[in-house]
Amino acid sequence: MTHVGVIGGGQLGRMLGLAGIPLGMRFSFLDPGDTPCAAAVGDVVTAAFDDTNAIRGFADACDVVTFEFENIPADLLLGDSSLDVFPPAAALYAAQERAREKTLFEQAGIPVAPWRAVDDQDMLDAAVADLGLPLIAKTRRLGYDGKGQSRIQTAQDAEGLLERMGGVPLLVERLVPFDREVSIIGTRNRAGQTVVYPLTQNVHVNGILHRSETAAFDGQIKRQAVRHFRALVDALDYVGTLAIEFFIKDDLLLGNEFAPRVHNSGHWTQNGAPYSQFDNHLRAICDLPLGATTHCRPAGMINLVGQSIVATELGGDNVFLHDYDKEERPGRKVGHVNVIADQQDQVTRALDALAAQIAR
Amino acid sequence: MTHVGVIGGGQLGRMLGLAGIPLGMRFSFLDPGDTPCAAAVGDVVTAAFDDTNAIRGFADACDVVTFEFENIPADLLLGDSSLDVFPPAAALYAAQERAREKTLFEQAGIPVAPWRAVDDQDMLDAAVADLGLPLIAKTRRLGYDGKGQSRIQTAQDAEGLLERMGGVPLLVERLVPFDREVSIIGTRNRAGQTVVYPLTQNVHVNGILHRSETAAFDGQIKRQAVRHFRALVDALDYVGTLAIEFFIKDDLLLGNEFAPRVHNSGHWTQNGAPYSQFDNHLRAICDLPLGATTHCRPAGMINLVGQSIVATELGGDNVFLHDYDKEERPGRKVGHVNVIADQQDQVTRALDALAAQIAR
Repeated sequence: MTHVGVIGGGQLGRMLGLAGIPLGMRFSFLDPGDTPCAAAVGDVVTAAFDDTNAIRGFADACDVVTFEFENIPADLLLGDSSLDVFPPAAALYAAQERAREKTLFEQAGIPVAPWRAVDDQDMLDAAVADLGLPLIAKTRRLGYDGKGQSRIQTAQDAEGLLERMGGVPLLVERLVPFDREVSIIGTRNRAGQTVVYPLTQNVHVNGILHRSETAAFDGQIKRQAVRHFRALVDALDYVGTLAIEFFIKDDLLLGNEFAPRVHNSGHWTQNGAPYSQFDNHLRAICDLPLGATTHCRPAGMINLVGQSIVATELGGDNVFLHDYDKEERPGRKVGHVNVIADQQDQVTRALDALAAQIAR
Repeated sequence: MTHVGVIGGGQLGRMLGLAGIPLGMRFSFLDPGDTPCAAAVGDVVTAAFDDTNAIRGFADACDVVTFEFENIPADLLLGDSSLDVFPPAAALYAAQERAREKTLFEQAGIPVAPWRAVDDQDMLDAAVADLGLPLIAKTRRLGYDGKGQSRIQTAQDAEGLLERMGGVPLLVERLVPFDREVSIIGTRNRAGQTVVYPLTQNVHVNGILHRSETAAFDGQIKRQAVRHFRALVDALDYVGTLAIEFFIKDDLLLGNEFAPRVHNSGHWTQNGAPYSQFDNHLRAICDLPLGATTHCRPAGMINLVGQSIVATELGGDNVFLHDYDKEERPGRKVGHVNVIADQQDQVTRALDALAAQIAR
């Protein structure tokens, strides 16, 4: 029995547990919360994410350690070679800071929108002059779900921006009028074997992922995405599931950000793929052969934000509720619904209907 | 959040929990064991299966109660109308005693092999005279996985048989030289909606289910099975998943036994169907619309008896391990492996290969 330790006890941990228990794995979750929702599928060690000693003790008690939450001190993990964590701490370290992330993309040959790191007003002014408007400014750390972002449409927007954004280091980049947002999810295991899932088209609302669906992309888009994925995971000697979000502009993929973990835009794989992104993450970190990503069906996912849906309101024909058993709060992801169908347009229509139902 | 109470904490309870947690359900298991394997997915209340007070208290604390183990006192459940258990106690009561089970089959219009209830030597001699040889004698209660069965090939075999079988009430029936064993799994919900899965062909070894696979059956075989399934669940005003095992002899289905619960021969539905038998059992008892059983793929299952298999030895291409995290013991079911494929013959070949691998 492999004892898997997961840093973080939220819904991603919960879904990792559900995927791993059939493989005979046991789970422990390190989380600062009293009753994180992953408690349904394992033990919980209550500790802060920056409690070095607690994390070391936790890791010692487990056979393998992974994380489902990115804002843990990568420095701690990097600095302690006895802490064998998958995905590698270097991936976490890069993902935690947007300038490092963009640099990594560039090193891996992944095109990105023109960008500058900005620490003061002079640097901001220079970036505006060099890159042109409009721009988007993002805090370099701790941004997620649209938090810590601000648009610079006019020169006036740039005045006092650093202060308004909390005086923290920023990254500004050209605001790309993209045609669509897509992500690629895939997994690389310890032996270097890699699998990728079909590309997903994503729609965000208020910076939070609203819905994702597999869609028909032409061959050269798919080839770009797969090439970028392989380049990134190989560069990181990555182990686990990873997601890259891209903008598509005129048939060119621009890397936006990546997540060194299972990702919301891959939740559809729970019902639309023989092996989900959670299955493959666990297989990768536990040195198992990866599950094939062939035989995926047209699929989609819609997030339940703020409030869940009553299961009785959902039909039982290719519609699948995944409730996180979390207290409902405005803006909080409390569940998602997956949809599968024979044809992509059926998925789209089913997601449209669900979106209308949720909005009521 | 629906709090589901399950009497029994074995692998069936474990797999019910895995299916229900995504629906936002919480699970408690009543079990006499220290660490039943369902503990991975819920709380455990330690009590004997005949501890009336414990079962009442357990039921009071849950929103809905079901069972995953048949040898619990149906009389207790039947005698206490405040105990609202699904499937209904009457189904459990009938399934617990083979004479009641055969009588129920006959009432529902399901053909059975000629049989007699036998309590003493005179009745046994009369049964041998009336039914002819060969016969099979089974204890009327507590038989499972081939235990409590004995063949009567010759008149000599009948002498002292009652004593050899423990002096308990028996049922003897004509030994049918059947062509194959099949089962039908389906679910009926509180509203009377019924779904059935594709028929499964089963192979037993030493009385224990060895492998099951969906197979091509001609239309009239399927129609018989579905008709018998509907007749039985309607007769019982049944709620939940139920399995009927049949023998096929010359295109006629003969009812062998039924299980008022999720069933080993339906485990393939975890990977071969959009909604598994576990999903639908929970949907039924929680008054949800049932999940469609269309879009099932050719699928099969092989049991891991005595010892599990190391996950690294399994490929990741449409082969799915379900380990129960149970201590390995000769004759004990400790897991199963599901297989799906595009074509039925690929399933058969994959199961053949797994059978050879397990036997090594």
